[in-house]
Amino acid sequence: MLWKFSNRAMALKSSAIREILKITEQPDVISFAGGLPSPNTFPVTEIKNAFNHIIAADEMTGALQYGPTEGYAPLRIWLAQYLSRRDHTNINPNQILIVTGSQQALDLIGKALIDKGSKVLVETPTYLGGLQSFTQYEPEYISLESDEQGIIPDVLDDNIAAKANFMYVIPNFQNPTGRRLPLARRQQLAKKAIANNLTLVEDDPYGELDYQGHRLPSLYTLAPENTIYLGSFSKILAPGLRLGYIVANEELINKLVQLKQAADLHTPSLTQRIAYHVIKDGFLETHIPKIRDLYRHRCQTMLNALQRYMPTTVTWNKPEGGMFIWIELPKNINATELLSEAIQHKVAFVPGETFFANTIHTNCMRLAFVTVPEEKIEQGVSILAQLITKWSDALEQSPTMI
Amino acid sequence: MLWKFSNRAMALKSSAIREILKITEQPDVISFAGGLPSPNTFPVTEIKNAFNHIIAADEMTGALQYGPTEGYAPLRIWLAQYLSRRDHTNINPNQILIVTGSQQALDLIGKALIDKGSKVLVETPTYLGGLQSFTQYEPEYISLESDEQGIIPDVLDDNIAAKANFMYVIPNFQNPTGRRLPLARRQQLAKKAIANNLTLVEDDPYGELDYQGHRLPSLYTLAPENTIYLGSFSKILAPGLRLGYIVANEELINKLVQLKQAADLHTPSLTQRIAYHVIKDGFLETHIPKIRDLYRHRCQTMLNALQRYMPTTVTWNKPEGGMFIWIELPKNINATELLSEAIQHKVAFVPGETFFANTIHTNCMRLAFVTVPEEKIEQGVSILAQLITKWSDALEQSPTMI
Repeated sequence: MLWKFSNRAMALKSSAIREILKITEQPDVISFAGGLPSPNTFPVTEIKNAFNHIIAADEMTGALQYGPTEGYAPLRIWLAQYLSRRDHTNINPNQILIVTGSQQALDLIGKALIDKGSKVLVETPTYLGGLQSFTQYEPEYISLESDEQGIIPDVLDDNIAAKANFMYVIPNFQNPTGRRLPLARRQQLAKKAIANNLTLVEDDPYGELDYQGHRLPSLYTLAPENTIYLGSFSKILAPGLRLGYIVANEELINKLVQLKQAADLHTPSLTQRIAYHVIKDGFLETHIPKIRDLYRHRCQTMLNALQRYMPTTVTWNKPEGGMFIWIELPKNINATELLSEAIQHKVAFVPGETFFANTIHTNCMRLAFVTVPEEKIEQGVSILAQLITKWSDALEQSPTMI
Repeated sequence: MLWKFSNRAMALKSSAIREILKITEQPDVISFAGGLPSPNTFPVTEIKNAFNHIIAADEMTGALQYGPTEGYAPLRIWLAQYLSRRDHTNINPNQILIVTGSQQALDLIGKALIDKGSKVLVETPTYLGGLQSFTQYEPEYISLESDEQGIIPDVLDDNIAAKANFMYVIPNFQNPTGRRLPLARRQQLAKKAIANNLTLVEDDPYGELDYQGHRLPSLYTLAPENTIYLGSFSKILAPGLRLGYIVANEELINKLVQLKQAADLHTPSLTQRIAYHVIKDGFLETHIPKIRDLYRHRCQTMLNALQRYMPTTVTWNKPEGGMFIWIELPKNINATELLSEAIQHKVAFVPGETFFANTIHTNCMRLAFVTVPEEKIEQGVSILAQLITKWSDALEQSPTMI
């Protein structure tokens, strides 16, 4: 059969990295690759209680029937109250759309805001999943100058800001770099967005994972009319539920509701109700600090191991929250090639090159420290460090390879 | 804020019918509108047992963690065996992609196979949700000549077949008409598809709801290389789980997997595992006959009521399965206008006009007979019949309106 694929489908390439990473599902591999939350944080007992409550309260018919595209109303009301309180703002439930994981939010936003050639501003580097969603609608990416604190609003040209369909930004503990945008830059960015009628797509799956519990104001609170805020339950409850949400003004939400109806009618009714019953009475207030403690500890374990084992030519950031450390290798080490050998030594990571929209840097890697227990973190980093040392030495001694 | 909407988003109109139908959620309305399965068919006890099994067997971590985009492997293996046995064919698990309801299948197929201006062949009328998904990728629709048995393959021009990116067809108890495509036409259509390298998108959510248990061969079995088969658990388990699946050759499935990864990463792990544990030991073999019995009975109740109450100028089909009856009113009655008055009398239906891709017929309506208990079916049809009689009389006496 000769399928008549669309241009966007023909442009899809099967990813070599994706194929390599399939190996990491084997249990004997120490994988720093997937951004998989620690299963220790999954609230199994609370989910069981929520399910039993739904049965006992005779809510199962509602949980199994078709539901509204906008989402389960009590969950939207709860979120509006929770976010308004947390962020000292005023959000109403009609501004909230429940989605099937925040990956779906990225797809719906691409559908709503991108035509072929539309200009989309992204961080350097940026989240691979965002690029995957947006690329299907054929934008032109503009990678913004960024440093270890995130994008630099000062150097963003007003003409470029005014012409862009939106800017995609992850201010808190960014995927892949783990960096957090400082308050002053948030304020500059919000100001620039308002001045140039620029839409900010603020993706915030990691915002609650601040190790000190010290939350910086969201872009949404600084420029509410310009910002589309994306939240997720994947990192604070469980990713297998596939539950996220979008907050924006009602005009935009109404468009996204129509697009979501065509995409999957609605997010599963059962998982929405389970999440609602788990969180409605303050569960997150005690649960989130436990996740922060675990991840802070694992982060410190990895930082200690990096300090102990890595050669001095390797550098990395020190995250204040989230799930990732970003490593820069000597310029002549290609992280994708390194991965092939690391896999043979049963250690995995994600090479940095997939996270760049324009100019690609090949000497970077993303390490997730949340999935693997402490003793394995130490062991995995030690193996990686030995390989990198070996490669560095070999490259020094072989001038033709430089 | 001036959102920079894409062309596809700007083309979306808020649907007047959708607004009217929101009223039908009130409990005192007799609604024949939504195609909502009867809650009596939801396997609540089995779902509870499946959930408890997942807890007891320590499978909850897997049910709450990120999972493969392709779907939960045991469910794919089970489906491959079930479908191979049911349809006397040979499907392997790599040919199966689990989706978040078969509405998502329609969206992914639109993404994979439609560029702006691509020709998509559809039945007259066809499923509204299919049109909603495909339209976002800006195809040119060609509505095929159809009669009370479905599309007429004989009159389909070979040039048109050869140029089309695909044909969208619902052979079993079609939404909205309830009609079933006869065996001879299926064979003709398969032959024509093979001869013209035409892709058939076979949407089959209602195939199991055959009142006599007499299944006709699917297009997939007649032209497996040409056909993308869409199945759903919404009508045989519960729609709130949002579980469907796609069967096709592996080349196509691989493309759809990449597109699904960008759309929502994967279908929720928990709902997939619940469905698997409910069905894996033969549950459907006893459950589906019960659904058929209930729906056959409700269908007959509605047919009897139509026969008893409707004026002779109104015609309808007699479904052999599924959930819908399609009504043709006298030509000068506009069903959308009729709906506005029917709602005031607490009865709802879906006007037929939304189901046409090209030339619109305004004197049709779709009645779903599965949601409402028998006594309400009789009452609702009686109210509708009185209104239609009143409108017919008024139109006869008012020649200026003809």
